Amino acid sequence: MEKNRLEAFSDGVIAIIITIMVLEMKVPHGHDFEALKPVVPVFLSYILSFIYVGIYWNNHHHLLQICKGVNGGIMWANLHLLFWLSLFPFVTGWAGEKPFTVLPSVLYGSILLLAAVAYFILQRLILRAHGRDSKFAESFGNDIKGKLSMVLYGAGIGASFFSPRIAALIYIAVALMWLVPDRRIEAALYHDKNNDSHPPA
Amino acid sequence: MEKNRLEAFSDGVIAIIITIMVLEMKVPHGHDFEALKPVVPVFLSYILSFIYVGIYWNNHHHLLQICKGVNGGIMWANLHLLFWLSLFPFVTGWAGEKPFTVLPSVLYGSILLLAAVAYFILQRLILRAHGRDSKFAESFGNDIKGKLSMVLYGAGIGASFFSPRIAALIYIAVALMWLVPDRRIEAALYHDKNNDSHPPA
Amino acid sequence: MEKNRLEAFSDGVIAIIITIMVLEMKVPHGHDFEALKPVVPVFLSYILSFIYVGIYWNNHHHLLQICKGVNGGIMWANLHLLFWLSLFPFVTGWAGEKPFTVLPSVLYGSILLLAAVAYFILQRLILRAHGRDSKFAESFGNDIKGKLSMVLYGAGIGASFFSPRIAALIYIAVALMWLVPDRRIEAALYHDKNNDSHPPA
Amino acid sequence: MEKNRLEAFSDGVIAIIITIMVLEMKVPHGHDFEALKPVVPVFLSYILSFIYVGIYWNNHHHLLQICKGVNGGIMWANLHLLFWLSLFPFVTGWAGEKPFTVLPSVLYGSILLLAAVAYFILQRLILRAHGRDSKFAESFGNDIKGKLSMVLYGAGIGASFFSPRIAALIYIAVALMWLVPDRRIEAALYHDKNNDSHPPA
Repeated sequence: MEKNRLEAFSDGVIAIIITIMVLEMKVPHGHDFEALKPVVPVFLSYILSFIYVGIYWNNHHHLLQICKGVNGGIMWANLHLLFWLSLFPFVTGWAGEKPFTVLPSVLYGSILLLAAVAYFILQRLILRAHGRDSKFAESFGNDIKGKLSMVLYGAGIGASFFSPRIAALIYIAVALMWLVPDRRIEAALYHDKNNDSHPPA
Repeated sequence: MEKNRLEAFSDGVIAIIITIMVLEMKVPHGHDFEALKPVVPVFLSYILSFIYVGIYWNNHHHLLQICKGVNGGIMWANLHLLFWLSLFPFVTGWAGEKPFTVLPSVLYGSILLLAAVAYFILQRLILRAHGRDSKFAESFGNDIKGKLSMVLYGAGIGASFFSPRIAALIYIAVALMWLVPDRRIEAALYHDKNNDSHPPA
Repeated sequence: MEKNRLEAFSDGVIAIIITIMVLEMKVPHGHDFEALKPVVPVFLSYILSFIYVGIYWNNHHHLLQICKGVNGGIMWANLHLLFWLSLFPFVTGWAGEKPFTVLPSVLYGSILLLAAVAYFILQRLILRAHGRDSKFAESFGNDIKGKLSMVLYGAGIGASFFSPRIAALIYIAVALMWLVPDRRIEAALYHDKNNDSHPPA
Repeated sequence: MEKNRLEAFSDGVIAIIITIMVLEMKVPHGHDFEALKPVVPVFLSYILSFIYVGIYWNNHHHLLQICKGVNGGIMWANLHLLFWLSLFPFVTGWAGEKPFTVLPSVLYGSILLLAAVAYFILQRLILRAHGRDSKFAESFGNDIKGKLSMVLYGAGIGASFFSPRIAALIYIAVALMWLVPDRRIEAALYHDKNNDSHPPA
């Protein structure tokens, strides 16, 4: 029961985050293409962030499905993850309003990185609570996809300083890596096909 | 259980969309009729969008009620539908602030069309997962109402270029078609009365 | 199950309405009492609206608790109620920003009246679906409290034209009538003590 | 069942509060450090408030877990708590926009204090409904942590008048007191280890 309320609360927060992000797309004051133009980059960054939050919801969903009990540490690790996710609307709005500028791109990548770290910690705590040798530990294996994402977010942050466009491409690539269930990539990443980090359900 | 969380998450997102749309109705700075005037068209577009989101919630509700299991494809098709629905507040606000202008009317119709396509894809995926010959496939039949809506949204988008008022009438007509359970129209649309696309519950 | 999803969706919408109302209290640009002053009437109207939405949630809660099944009519009557409730943030913000002016006071009362009418229709539909002679019909009795509220909202709207302050007092009085479970008033209003319109749980 | 709906509604409201607080962090108009600067104090006050709302959700969670039934008094005491929590976004935004100024600091502390009082009342009502000698009463014991918090909030309000920085330190200290489960402090505070006010789950 306790786990259900954690799930329901997380769902609520993630549902609100994914929806209020759209409020960063301000209704234009004119009614022609010229007026719509500044909304376009905000819309594009909205699409990317929507996909990212969708991926987090999806993964969070699987993580908690396998998890059985909740303790204080898991509760706070979960809130820690929600904290970084809650900053998505802000960085999405900024990256969209000042497209391809250094600082917004750095910040966008940093929030992605910090959310990934928070997810990693949450996964670790659930793993510890369930024992390393459990079916749970197996199914999350060495989580190469998660670790690779963190490296790529770092690369994106670094790339922002000389080319925010390349940083944007990296952020898009990571999202696609999670979104597209490419069997060949998965086969290359994992020693064992059954060690699939986040099974597609 | 997995399906329940998908349902709960969708309910959350739809509940937020339907509610934050009202934030596009900005509190007037004056306190007389003159000050209230610009809010009126936003209010009217809010009513229409509220009905549309209500119809989607209603239909989504029935679709998932019959559906039994959720896979990765259904999950993402559902998020895809929520994505287009999440743009309702934006297009509602714009169409309300610049009533009967070409581009806002085109965009409003486009979001309606894209949401309808997303719903169609979701329905298709659930249909495929449950087998074409199942009771589920029957109950969604040939879905003439859904297909007719898409044609009418397209007509509305086209009409926007010469008369946004006619486009608005078309968008209202489609909403009424879903809202009013007119038995004669239904009888004319469907070969078999039992093939009712979205039973009124 | 169907009823549960209606309940959950309504809870979601009401939870969002009651919370986003606070966004009408704009953060002051200064940091002294002078800067805080214009927020005070918005805060006061927020308190009143919070209590009203709380009462609706409470009553809606009881209404659906007794109700057993949901049909299309009940679903739409429920959305109709949520529609008027969703306008609370707007009228609360306006009445708070232009305190004791005619039109905002008229509109505030009108939304209260329309929400009450919507609640009455929903109650009627549930009553009809469950049969007039059922325990349900009994427990909602003649609903004098609900009818009296509608008369008082009407009186408040009328009073707004010559004294918005008196209108405000009427709106406050109706809220208190629902909030304070005064046994003597209840005894005077109902022929039979068991005909209590909305049992305090 | 009734308790579940109270829980779900509270979760919804708390999830919205914790998420819309981030809307007070306005997207900067520039794209350099200078433009980001005014967001920093809002961000810091957001962190503190996020932790506070997290603590409330956590404690509320435990309180209702032990509680068995819900009556009218508990329902309204719960709404009363949600009311004060709903003002967190406002005071967080103000304290963040005018960092270390007297009135915002006083108001921030006052809302903390009023929410604590509301929580205390809710706890009292649940305690009364379950009998003083129950396991429930025991597990909430003399609640020294809760009472100490109220004293410290009062001290913070007082300190605001001569040094808002010290007030901020006090508010942070109280949050840490709840966040960090320091066994030594707990041992010093409670006569009996089993009288732990809010067990860590």
